[in-house]
Amino acid sequence: MSTEPAPISFARGAPSLDIIDVDGLRRAAERAFSKDPAGTFAYGTAVGYKPLRAWIAERHGVPEDHVIVTNGSMQADAFLFETLVQPGDGVAVERPSYDRTLLSLRQREAKLHPVELESDGINVTALAELLAGGTSISLAHIIPNFQNPAGYTLSGDKRRALVALAREYGFTIFEDDPYVELRFTGSTEPTLLSLATSGEVVYASSFSKTVCPGIRVGYLVGDPELIGKITTLATNTYISPSMVSQSIVNEFVRGGSFDASIETVKTALSQRARALADGLRTHLPEVQFVEPDGGYFMWVQLPEGVDGDALADAAANRGVAVVKGSDFLTDGSRNALRLAFSAVTVPEIEEGVTRLADAYREIT
Amino acid sequence: MSTEPAPISFARGAPSLDIIDVDGLRRAAERAFSKDPAGTFAYGTAVGYKPLRAWIAERHGVPEDHVIVTNGSMQADAFLFETLVQPGDGVAVERPSYDRTLLSLRQREAKLHPVELESDGINVTALAELLAGGTSISLAHIIPNFQNPAGYTLSGDKRRALVALAREYGFTIFEDDPYVELRFTGSTEPTLLSLATSGEVVYASSFSKTVCPGIRVGYLVGDPELIGKITTLATNTYISPSMVSQSIVNEFVRGGSFDASIETVKTALSQRARALADGLRTHLPEVQFVEPDGGYFMWVQLPEGVDGDALADAAANRGVAVVKGSDFLTDGSRNALRLAFSAVTVPEIEEGVTRLADAYREIT
Repeated sequence: MSTEPAPISFARGAPSLDIIDVDGLRRAAERAFSKDPAGTFAYGTAVGYKPLRAWIAERHGVPEDHVIVTNGSMQADAFLFETLVQPGDGVAVERPSYDRTLLSLRQREAKLHPVELESDGINVTALAELLAGGTSISLAHIIPNFQNPAGYTLSGDKRRALVALAREYGFTIFEDDPYVELRFTGSTEPTLLSLATSGEVVYASSFSKTVCPGIRVGYLVGDPELIGKITTLATNTYISPSMVSQSIVNEFVRGGSFDASIETVKTALSQRARALADGLRTHLPEVQFVEPDGGYFMWVQLPEGVDGDALADAAANRGVAVVKGSDFLTDGSRNALRLAFSAVTVPEIEEGVTRLADAYREIT
Repeated sequence: MSTEPAPISFARGAPSLDIIDVDGLRRAAERAFSKDPAGTFAYGTAVGYKPLRAWIAERHGVPEDHVIVTNGSMQADAFLFETLVQPGDGVAVERPSYDRTLLSLRQREAKLHPVELESDGINVTALAELLAGGTSISLAHIIPNFQNPAGYTLSGDKRRALVALAREYGFTIFEDDPYVELRFTGSTEPTLLSLATSGEVVYASSFSKTVCPGIRVGYLVGDPELIGKITTLATNTYISPSMVSQSIVNEFVRGGSFDASIETVKTALSQRARALADGLRTHLPEVQFVEPDGGYFMWVQLPEGVDGDALADAAANRGVAVVKGSDFLTDGSRNALRLAFSAVTVPEIEEGVTRLADAYREIT
């Protein structure tokens, strides 16, 4: 009788249940339902639950009409792309970048221009050369903190240079920033949004990583004219997002649970990132990676000639799920993996890395 | 010092807070959060929260893969139209019909074919003649019960005839049925879905009228191939709908609150519909209407030459909100109003009708 090894997932870019503040969510729901049943249970409007919108606006130091709160930030992205990206438009993307965003942009028939992602963020010099060479883009998609899939963070100097480029060439920066609160070492750089002077940046984030993903609350911050167009699109699509979800999030973030919840998440993520890095150094010294300062992900580059897709398959046979690096690249390159450390405990990580190393020995 | 009269809204197609089971919702949330925190707070998949999907499938007597649960039924409509309606496609619609649906279809560049709505539902003979005359349609949009805006219900004979037409001419019936549970007199006709034999019907409904609108939970039931396509579209749009909302609804409908909640709603709606009809007969005998057997709405037809838009404006000056009939028509006709009795108490209705009658006297 064979015994299957317990599955271990480095594939899921999601928090494990043990770092979700279930009790805080229960108390937030009780308060939301008691304090504002009319706002929670009636139809709202497409701008979102207004007290939460006000909280977000205050946090970003903008007027409320710069903010729309949506059913998760992917939905916000979809509205944004429908508004700003027409078929044939040029869009600069990081290389590698989040596979779902690449898919959405391709489905809009955007012309993607991948620009190398370095360990301090997108190669701004390469982007500047692309633009100087006459390539026209309407949008640049940037995940500035603890990038998905690489875990890299954009430096302050590059942030300022990017905003200057957007101003010079008249494109919009889409600052896609769901992981910003999850920094466990170092200091936070200013948002691109805060560096913008005349609507060069539209900012997206969500509560998926700080409250929980199943509640599906995300948002956009940007120029009020753009937000107004997106609000019309949202009204015509779903009248209003879930007021119940947003009212619960509003009580969660205002009720004192938020900072404690983020601390819990960051502590766990920090331990997990460290365990993963230590495990790789011990068992797989052949691979290269940058230990992230926050977030969920680590990008593992394999030696020349080692096939990441084959490694992912070999790992799967040992009960370890990883995502092939090729999913995040548009050019078919195959010598990387994305390892998510968000949904695995430290013992699972240690066991998972030894199995991954076994798989590596098998295919090389 | 002038005193404004208290505003009374016959415009809002939504339940008043007094007929929402806030306490039942609180208990449902407690159960959902305790019994299934993983399913409630983690990412789900685009098919929706699976226990709720299973409940819906059972209620309609179909396998689970015939069902997708979405963030409200408008979102479901948007996915459906994106899948089934291409620019230039013919779509039969009831005349009058729900303004938001007409807008969505127009934005998809559908060619609308309005077919007269009679007090027992769409004029099927007229639709048959249209089709026999060579007009091609890909979709027919039907609100079979307590139609919005008219309050009319499709008869059993017409239901059978419609399904036969769909089979003969190869179009899909979109059965848009949010009000079906709100029948306060008479007996329920079979759904078009239940009369279909080979995927002629896709059915949409929601919990907005039976649980609450702010929770934004709707669904589609249809051919699994179609539902599969829509699920892919939903995945790419928002990964998953709000699991928190859907898990609360699941506990609400399974926990025994559902039937009691519907009874409360129906009793109130029945009293409100009666009060509105009585008030109109007493104070505005000039107008014509059919007293509805359920739902939220009454369609009030004005005598030849009386301008519904002007009446709506005159009523607004007296603090009474109504929706102009012309919003629900595509041909500019202006001698009707939609009165919603869902969000007003009986005393408000009595006062509102006298003010509406005063407005009528003023403009005629």
